[in-house]
This record gives sequence, C-alpha cells and structure tokens, in this order.
Amino acid sequence: MQMLNDLLEYKDLKIYQDTDFFHFSLDSILLPNFVTLNPRCQSILDIGTGNAVIPLILTTKTKAKICGVEIQKTSYDLAEKSVKLNKLSNQISIVLDDIKHYAEIQESDIYDVITCNPPYFPISDCSRINSLNGKALARHELSLQLEDILKISRKLLKNNGIFAMVHRPDRLVEILLCMKNYNIEPKKIQLIYPKVGKEANILLIEGRKNGKPGLKILDPIYAHNQNGSYTEQIMKYFKEE
Amino acid sequence: MQMLNDLLEYKDLKIYQDTDFFHFSLDSILLPNFVTLNPRCQSILDIGTGNAVIPLILTTKTKAKICGVEIQKTSYDLAEKSVKLNKLSNQISIVLDDIKHYAEIQESDIYDVITCNPPYFPISDCSRINSLNGKALARHELSLQLEDILKISRKLLKNNGIFAMVHRPDRLVEILLCMKNYNIEPKKIQLIYPKVGKEANILLIEGRKNGKPGLKILDPIYAHNQNGSYTEQIMKYFKEE
Repeated sequence: MQMLNDLLEYKDLKIYQDTDFFHFSLDSILLPNFVTLNPRCQSILDIGTGNAVIPLILTTKTKAKICGVEIQKTSYDLAEKSVKLNKLSNQISIVLDDIKHYAEIQESDIYDVITCNPPYFPISDCSRINSLNGKALARHELSLQLEDILKISRKLLKNNGIFAMVHRPDRLVEILLCMKNYNIEPKKIQLIYPKVGKEANILLIEGRKNGKPGLKILDPIYAHNQNGSYTEQIMKYFKEE
Repeated sequence: MQMLNDLLEYKDLKIYQDTDFFHFSLDSILLPNFVTLNPRCQSILDIGTGNAVIPLILTTKTKAKICGVEIQKTSYDLAEKSVKLNKLSNQISIVLDDIKHYAEIQESDIYDVITCNPPYFPISDCSRINSLNGKALARHELSLQLEDILKISRKLLKNNGIFAMVHRPDRLVEILLCMKNYNIEPKKIQLIYPKVGKEANILLIEGRKNGKPGLKILDPIYAHNQNGSYTEQIMKYFKEE
C-alpha cells in the first residue's frame, strides 16, 4: 500500500483519490474481499461507487462486468480516470447519476451481485454533518437511506442474487430488519475489530434475494496489532497473488 | 474444572449434574459471565434453569435474589440438591413449574434481570429430536419457543430491565426480530468461536425492555486453542478471584 500524492496502489491497480475530499478507507478494501463471487457471476452493480475503489478491486477477483453508479461529479471524474489508467474500460462502466433515478429506469432482475459502501450516519445525527457538501453526501444518509438501498437492490437483483454491504455494527438490528422487509435474506456476517479486546467497528453483511434463512458469522478480522500497525489479515489483501 | 462423578466444580461451587441426562455445557458458564449486573440489581429470573448452573454461578457475581424455574423433575431435584450443598437457599429459589404457567400467575414488572439458556433447535428440525424425552425438552422448542421466552420476559421484566440469552448464531436474525417485536431492544452481542479461523458457534445476546436502539458487539471469545485445550479466556472463568 503506497500513497503517491492522490494515487493509491493496490496490487497492480493504481487508484486516484481526492485527498481533500473523502479519503479512501479500509471499508472499500474489505467489501470486495468479503462478497461471494461465484464463477457464473456475470454482472455486478456498485451503489455509490465514489472513486470506484470497489469495482477496481473486484476486477482482481472476477471477470464479471461491473457498473458503478455515482452521484457526485468530482468522484465520478476520479473513477473514470482510474478505470482508464488501469485499462479496465472493457470491464468497468461508471455512470454519473442518482442511484434512485438509475434504478427507476432499469429493468428488474438484472444483476447477479450488488455491493454498497453507503453513507453510515442517519440524518437525525445532525451534529456530525460535515459542512463540505461532498463529504456530507458520502457520510450521511442525505440522498440515500438504508431503505432506499434495499429497495433498489430487491428490484435490480436477479432471484437468489447477492447483496453485500459494509456498515457499522451499531446499526445491525436496523439493517437485518430492513433486509428481511425487502426479501433479502441475511446469510453471512463478518465483524472487524480495531484490535484485540475492543468492540467491533466495521460490519460486513451479505444476503440473498429470496434466499432461505440461515446465517453464518465468519471468523473475526482484527485491523491493527497492539502497536498500531496493520495486521497480517489486512496486509494480505494488498499482496500480489 | 473437575468432574467428580456427577459433580462439577466451579470456583468454590459444587454443581450436581445428571451425566446420563443432559450435560453441563460451556453455554451455562458463558451467560452468567456475560450478563450486565449492576449493584442495584435485586431480582433475577433464570428461565429453564435445568440443574441451576446459571443461578449458582450468578451468586459469585451478585447478591440479588435468584429464582430458577424448571419444568423437569429430575433437573429440579439436582438443582435443589446443589443449592442446599452450597448453602445458597437464602439467595436461590428453585420452582418446579412450566415457565409459561409461572409467568401467568406472576405480577408484571418484577425482575431486574432475566437469563435464559433455552432449547436451541426449532421443532421443525425433527430429525434431531432425541428419543429420550428429557433431552428432547431441553434441546428442542417442544414446550418453549423463542417467542414464548420474549413474551414472558416482556411481562416479567421491570422497565429498562435486562434480558440475556445464549443461543446459536444461525438464529440471530430471528432472535433480533423477536426481541424487537416484544420491545426488548438488543444492546449487546458477543460471539464465541470454537477456535481461530472457524465460524462462530455460540451467540450471547442482551437487550433492555423499552431500551433505546444502539448495539455493541463485544470482542470475540475463542473457546479452544489450536491443540484443542480451553483458551485462557475460558479458563479464567474457573479461577478463584
């Protein structure tokens, strides 16, 4: 993992990011490494793709076509730049649109997999809203709420298609209720702990549209060693295979 | 931890168990060590108390009065025997009754804390039903279903009282939905993994009657080392303080 001004390196990929805008985070690395990708997977949608970190990392794992939808022009431009730089225009397409509008104009049942690293904080939590508009949109549920994400996913996923999201553990109850309400059956959870002895601070969750009940909770991931360095579990994501 | 015929030792306690009947399990040690017990806690109910392992261990942590309700005579007799042997009749009372009947004849809002190590397997899962009636009752939801437990707890808990249960992670979604339905807000989860790299196999969950939303997921517990021995995390429960 190297930071070259605004360029992040991940395996062979080079990923542009706007360091003044919204930092690349661990979440975006964890999700594409968590989601179930079977060899028959042909089409993936990444909701709120930002600078396209998730689609870019997914290309190291699947040959499926990946569509990233982003509402903000600044992020969209960075995403486009990275896709071109990595010569992945054949596999990744980036759409500049509000995902709610995008979902409306699509047919139903078209994606095998949907991924999402959404805004985490409910709008009720106003104290944390960042004055910078871009940051606020990416962090708070101003334009996209949990329920919107599940509603869109139910429409766009094929039957038995996979929905995978990264979120905060304190919202687990609400997330599970919402998934159930939209017939996306929770199937797999993995929790990330900042270090040994601390509470979980990142939640990875996957469900299947119209899936059968039965949840697995995978082995935990620790992000940091006691001295603050990244653990081997995290560092292995960055290593060439 | 020592097994003397049918006598288990836990710290200073000696706990009778019927080795032909239903073995003492790790679950019953984890739950009393997980549940939140504040100094003002005066009254605890243990639903389906079996041989009273949970009430007995709770006496090492609280001065509150503890009532254990058990439907089966064989388990009830063992529970009574252990309570007397440990001279804890002043703190623990054991009631031989169906918890559903017990709850009906009680007034509402009387307990600060309710604990439960319930039957794990839904009755639909008939293949696993054990021919021995006692085992079947203790393992399957024949006489007591998840919904009964939550309904009873909502009635008997004081406002803001604590409900704590040990269960299986694959039923987490159903458990959370059921808790929400009965106004017991999930507040704390801890997962137990048999060893590093395996899926979780025990779920500890706590909620508060009419509590505010907001869930914490505590640091994981590993039960066994790679060589199969109990971890230090588990062994510390058995050590004298």
